[in-house]
Amino acid sequence: MPVGGAEEKIRDTEILRHFVELSGGDGARIVVIPTASRAKETGESYLSLFRGLGASDGSVLPIESRADCSRKEWIREIESADGVFLTGGNQLRLSTTIGGTPVAFALRRMNRRGMVVAGTSAGAAFMSEHMIAFGEEGASPRADMVTLAPGLGLLDNVIIDQHFRERDRLGRLLAALAFNPNGIGVGLDEDTAAVIGPDNVLRVLGSGAITIVDPADLEFSSMDSAQEHSPVCLIGIKIHVLIADSTFDLTTRVAAPPPHL
Amino acid sequence: MPVGGAEEKIRDTEILRHFVELSGGDGARIVVIPTASRAKETGESYLSLFRGLGASDGSVLPIESRADCSRKEWIREIESADGVFLTGGNQLRLSTTIGGTPVAFALRRMNRRGMVVAGTSAGAAFMSEHMIAFGEEGASPRADMVTLAPGLGLLDNVIIDQHFRERDRLGRLLAALAFNPNGIGVGLDEDTAAVIGPDNVLRVLGSGAITIVDPADLEFSSMDSAQEHSPVCLIGIKIHVLIADSTFDLTTRVAAPPPHL
Repeated sequence: MPVGGAEEKIRDTEILRHFVELSGGDGARIVVIPTASRAKETGESYLSLFRGLGASDGSVLPIESRADCSRKEWIREIESADGVFLTGGNQLRLSTTIGGTPVAFALRRMNRRGMVVAGTSAGAAFMSEHMIAFGEEGASPRADMVTLAPGLGLLDNVIIDQHFRERDRLGRLLAALAFNPNGIGVGLDEDTAAVIGPDNVLRVLGSGAITIVDPADLEFSSMDSAQEHSPVCLIGIKIHVLIADSTFDLTTRVAAPPPHL
Repeated sequence: MPVGGAEEKIRDTEILRHFVELSGGDGARIVVIPTASRAKETGESYLSLFRGLGASDGSVLPIESRADCSRKEWIREIESADGVFLTGGNQLRLSTTIGGTPVAFALRRMNRRGMVVAGTSAGAAFMSEHMIAFGEEGASPRADMVTLAPGLGLLDNVIIDQHFRERDRLGRLLAALAFNPNGIGVGLDEDTAAVIGPDNVLRVLGSGAITIVDPADLEFSSMDSAQEHSPVCLIGIKIHVLIADSTFDLTTRVAAPPPHL
């Protein structure tokens, strides 16, 4: 369940509440991993939000180093959790600290078994196999505007970008997909979540939109010959802008509007 | 020939030079209409640029009021021009001052007969039948983020937006198309021009990209039921990002990469 960042925490806590409900609702055991953030209080403040939404138990794992990622009692915390929440901050801090460690393996293993993993902003970016490490703003793609890095790998075929509308990130998502038009781009606006179930169907939750960028029918890309700073030519990109309750099947690549519209 | 604004005027004047060449090159008679701009010197500085690029003759028509648009000697200037250039500024000043006047009719009539009309920024926006009057930034469309107004009507089936990458305007272009997915969106980056010939084929010129937004296969739009400030659901938008020498046939809606790639 990747979230586009800046999810509403006071008035309408729909997204955080849904995460608690997916994790089992009342009595759900939630683990917060605040590693992306440099602010000391981030983890605890999320945990108290989740407690306020019905989670009866839980903990914060203040992972700061790769050595922390081998601590047996923390692995056990993850293994006994119903849901894990990755906070925002810097996704490279997540990948350099957690990547390839027992914590990463535990998250992947438990997620396959049904444990809910949510991440907001940097936490969302980190969830896919190929992660946008950093990049530049702008609506049209240029050759060197985005840098990819290996992510946590919970989502195979997807590249996630967040704060999508707010930070003008279509260009860098297109550039990321142009390297290898195998993946599906998922651009998350703020206060918006992609709830992806075991059936690989994505459902939109929240007040913003999710922009799906599907390069399956790409006819031409100049990414292999583009000069530094130069724009990239891409012919035949398909885009869906999805609002709450719309769905996108990540396997069949079929989008559907909200059922009530 | 709509231009995305901020075309290079000193080092590589490719776009302005191409406009002069299309108008006949050496000896071409160029008329500059600086109405969109509030700066007194805009018209004269463009005219001296064009003279430096080979245009031997020309004039600035400092149209400031609707009454100016009936001045017979200015209509004759347009009727004897090889090319007319509309400067940047505010497109609503163009539409409120020139719309429906003898100057507008002269521009349409002469353009149909082969006179070149170029416009940069606001001048580009004004050229289409449906013009983006103003709007908000952002990559995903919302219900009330864009306001359309009737434009000059040289291009029937096209909605132009400019400073496209630089000002993050995909959302407002999508919103503009969502009202009636009949048109084709043309998002022009700065220092980039769309050269549209009598064959209705658009060729890209300049250092940036042109983003073509084609809603022909749109499966669903929630524009009719979207709440104020809320995002709009759009399923099945096609996008092409085109670089210099790419083409897009506005009749058949087929894009082609640069021939040398």
